[in-house]
Amino acid sequence: MATQTAPARTTFISQPNGVESSPSNSAAALPPASAMSPELEQTLALLSSHRSVLGYMLLSRGHPTSIIRHSGVVFDGDQGRKYASVISRIVETAQVGLEEISGGDSDVDEVRFLRLRTKRHEIMISPDDRYLLAVLHDPAS
Amino acid sequence: MATQTAPARTTFISQPNGVESSPSNSAAALPPASAMSPELEQTLALLSSHRSVLGYMLLSRGHPTSIIRHSGVVFDGDQGRKYASVISRIVETAQVGLEEISGGDSDVDEVRFLRLRTKRHEIMISPDDRYLLAVLHDPAS
Repeated sequence: MATQTAPARTTFISQPNGVESSPSNSAAALPPASAMSPELEQTLALLSSHRSVLGYMLLSRGHPTSIIRHSGVVFDGDQGRKYASVISRIVETAQVGLEEISGGDSDVDEVRFLRLRTKRHEIMISPDDRYLLAVLHDPAS
Repeated sequence: MATQTAPARTTFISQPNGVESSPSNSAAALPPASAMSPELEQTLALLSSHRSVLGYMLLSRGHPTSIIRHSGVVFDGDQGRKYASVISRIVETAQVGLEEISGGDSDVDEVRFLRLRTKRHEIMISPDDRYLLAVLHDPAS
């Protein structure tokens, strides 16, 4: 049986040359939207064009999280901010949990992907060192 | 395109006739292991016989959670208790989050299934009103 390797770590946004990597909570470390690569733009556009995709959000991993960009009415305004906060919290809970389980091990387990099926939707969450990508999917479509 | 209905609510253990349903945090509400249906026993045995299944845990939804039964060395002893606590916490964070998002709606969204892919494993969590079933899966097997 072919072995499957763990999903590669996702890198969402490449840092332009010369930009120092700062502590991830610093707003100054986030590139402006214009610095996003064309590949990323294309991927996000393709993603949101799927008829069963209700929206996506790209969030920072800071506390509190901030919404870098989003698509879909479901992630607009107050509701978007609530989703952002909740999604961020779920990932942090999982990651902190994995660190507790790993105990003193030098090799801590890490969250690679999280898929939450609810009564209404499915939320897929892909974390990165600095960002979270969350996609809201309607499985009934 | 065929519509998919939301996964049915899972009922793990049928209550023997005459047993009152108690608040889910009461230990008295949990049936003894001997009251588990043969179908459940069979399903759990089948589950743990898969070569890529490292173990499973059946947890109560109380605070703190308790391990009703488990299988696999990965869920033994202290490590099992850590996993139990973390898994319980992740589900509660997700459920509380959904309640926040639903706001004042009478129809609150609910967690039906959660799949967490980590660097090492995959954890599948299926909640019920009273229980959580968690399965640790090794995707490389």
